Amino acid sequence: MTDPRSVDLIVYPHWLVPVEPEGLVLEDHALVVDGGEIVELLPADFARQRYRARQTLERSGHALLPGLVNAHTHAAMSLLRGLADDRALMDWLTHHIWPAEAAHLSREFCRDGVLLACAELIRGGVTCFNDMYFFPETTAAVVREVGLRAAIGLIVLEFPTTYAQNADEYLHKGQALHDELRGEPRLRPAFAPHAPYTVGDAALSRLRVYASELAVPIHMHLHETAHEVEQAQAETGERPWARLRRLELLGPEFIAVHMTQLTEQEIVETAELGVNIVHCPESNMKLASGFCPAAKLLAAGANLAIGTDGAASNNDLDVLGETRSAALLAKAVAGDAAALPAARALTAATLGGARALGWNERIGSLRPGKAADFITVDLSAPETQPLYDVISQLVYACGRQQVRDVFVDGRPLLHERRLLSLDLDATLAAAQRWRARIAAAAG
Amino acid sequence: MTDPRSVDLIVYPHWLVPVEPEGLVLEDHALVVDGGEIVELLPADFARQRYRARQTLERSGHALLPGLVNAHTHAAMSLLRGLADDRALMDWLTHHIWPAEAAHLSREFCRDGVLLACAELIRGGVTCFNDMYFFPETTAAVVREVGLRAAIGLIVLEFPTTYAQNADEYLHKGQALHDELRGEPRLRPAFAPHAPYTVGDAALSRLRVYASELAVPIHMHLHETAHEVEQAQAETGERPWARLRRLELLGPEFIAVHMTQLTEQEIVETAELGVNIVHCPESNMKLASGFCPAAKLLAAGANLAIGTDGAASNNDLDVLGETRSAALLAKAVAGDAAALPAARALTAATLGGARALGWNERIGSLRPGKAADFITVDLSAPETQPLYDVISQLVYACGRQQVRDVFVDGRPLLHERRLLSLDLDATLAAAQRWRARIAAAAG
Repeated sequence: MTDPRSVDLIVYPHWLVPVEPEGLVLEDHALVVDGGEIVELLPADFARQRYRARQTLERSGHALLPGLVNAHTHAAMSLLRGLADDRALMDWLTHHIWPAEAAHLSREFCRDGVLLACAELIRGGVTCFNDMYFFPETTAAVVREVGLRAAIGLIVLEFPTTYAQNADEYLHKGQALHDELRGEPRLRPAFAPHAPYTVGDAALSRLRVYASELAVPIHMHLHETAHEVEQAQAETGERPWARLRRLELLGPEFIAVHMTQLTEQEIVETAELGVNIVHCPESNMKLASGFCPAAKLLAAGANLAIGTDGAASNNDLDVLGETRSAALLAKAVAGDAAALPAARALTAATLGGARALGWNERIGSLRPGKAADFITVDLSAPETQPLYDVISQLVYACGRQQVRDVFVDGRPLLHERRLLSLDLDATLAAAQRWRARIAAAAG
Repeated sequence: MTDPRSVDLIVYPHWLVPVEPEGLVLEDHALVVDGGEIVELLPADFARQRYRARQTLERSGHALLPGLVNAHTHAAMSLLRGLADDRALMDWLTHHIWPAEAAHLSREFCRDGVLLACAELIRGGVTCFNDMYFFPETTAAVVREVGLRAAIGLIVLEFPTTYAQNADEYLHKGQALHDELRGEPRLRPAFAPHAPYTVGDAALSRLRVYASELAVPIHMHLHETAHEVEQAQAETGERPWARLRRLELLGPEFIAVHMTQLTEQEIVETAELGVNIVHCPESNMKLASGFCPAAKLLAAGANLAIGTDGAASNNDLDVLGETRSAALLAKAVAGDAAALPAARALTAATLGGARALGWNERIGSLRPGKAADFITVDLSAPETQPLYDVISQLVYACGRQQVRDVFVDGRPLLHERRLLSLDLDATLAAAQRWRARIAAAAG
């Protein structure tokens, strides 16, 4: 018998949920981590024999699973949480959100807003998010600092903000940031044209060329509301989906967010073209945008990811709760209680998001060689007892506050609910300063 | 100036949300409690001058609001949480839930299940629930013991269980329990015929007479699924709603649970007859039962309450989360982002439930003379910051674990998240013993 191998960390949870294969739950197994990567998943007894760990975490009564992936956020908008509710999308955008952004948007706004979002994301078991917002270099800097993982959207719009004046400048800034992020292990760029109704054909075509040359995804709101689709058809005779198809944007690198308005043919095309869907059920419900046909998209073979959208339209960044909402709503919309079952929903919230970002070789499931991005969840509370089925409990009964530990690249960001890489008091104090300023301006 | 009056308790929250009038938020106010009742809501400075309290709670950063009312539960079924998911209602009932009940239902099952439910309800800020299950005298005994408030459903079915053999015996036992509960301040009976498809005309007619004589509400599942309505029409030519109307059950004492299948005429009649609706959006979604037209019912003038249904079909008893789901889903179903706004949703979860139970003179809002049933909720966490609108934050962003204190009749049941009237360890141990037995039997 050889000597035990020295490793950084072994975690002994009650249940280990690797997500690949879908639905598998391992009892009395350990997760072995070294150099920021997963070394092995193996029976706890073997782990004790074969490895000597510099750190050991005993987590009886807990499940261990991959970190959740929030596949659509506007992190800095957490500073606008609850500023304007119970309003339709275009009213909410044009009369509340865009004016607030016009008045307050700055590098500092983004820094403080992203810090607040990161505190919420980490406490809720999210290890990776896919962001779209202004000053993306600031978002990248905060993510680097707090140790999370993110796809940073290089935002493109046709109209001026304090960040950029026109599509050219947005694209230029995006390319510069792309170059800066090269070689970063936890940050990846994605082009992020806001929506079909805010970016013209010329900018989209240029962006497609860049995205293809640089091999980065394109992250875009698409078919969010019936109004969006109807207006495009009235003005151009073309549905936004058909337009993006004509411009050759749609493929496995395309991340289509919302997709509540789809013909049967568009559902088939989504799967055939390999377009990734980010389903944001709570934002879609709150803004009365419509219902994404999640079960039909999955049946067609499309990749489904889960996003919260920004906290200004959700109003939280709770991926566990969003996954529950997705699983519940899919059944109601499909008229089939077997639609989007718990294990499939958990896949969407982890591996589905990783696939959408083109990051599934690195994250989204617990496999040897992947990054050690994982969370532990305490299932011993009365809210999740008795326990017949771990994955059912995680998706249908568990609250995000039951997340106990969060690791990214093997580094702990949350330990027994304590944030380790972020000054929570300072973050909350900054949020309250912004609140005072924004509330005063809103009258 | 007179001497300060001695009272039992004064609470100083940051925000006081009385629910009546809807939408009101008082800052720097205090709630004064004496003899289990609310004495006054008044500015904090005045409270300090006019009252001397035996106990004082300072709750900066917290909201104080009426205890939540869970208007439809099967509390004991918490022991079956997650036993069978992702199945349609009749499959779930006939192949999983009813067989499990046939094998395990007993007084002990109910006692242990209701204790587990009470732990979850109290921790989630629920002070009153409306239950329907077997062995209701056991449910009543547990509620009495833990200090909660409840309407106890005197269940009636046509088929035999270990509780009773036929409708006669159910009715007989119900009447006996009704008499036992007389004069209890925190317990009220309600007749609870299970559903139109499980109780015949003869039993319903007798029950109507008793309910009317005894002046107690009737609590019943109604129009839960399209299947239920179609089958009744196919067999009798009559929709269940029409049948209950013919039997003269429908009126202000009738509590109709689910109501996902309603014609425009039935919506109008619901309001005209004063029938109370209990909306259970998560259970309806999970079982793919359909969508309750909550916004249309409210527009017609009906009283709307919120229920979780049992933890076997939800899978939690989280009224705060259910209220968020109701508010979100109502917008999506109505195609109107202004439907069921936050303040209206909070009314449904408190006063709406109280009205449905005929208990609104005593609970459901914070008014002098009403019972001191209230909760405090910590809004200082990053998940609910920054804060522009307290009620938006409570409904759209807050998690139930942010509930800090729970009082019923002025008695604390949860203090700084500690359960005071219930042995949590013993309750969890019992739940785990049931899990072992039920899982073994289910194979």
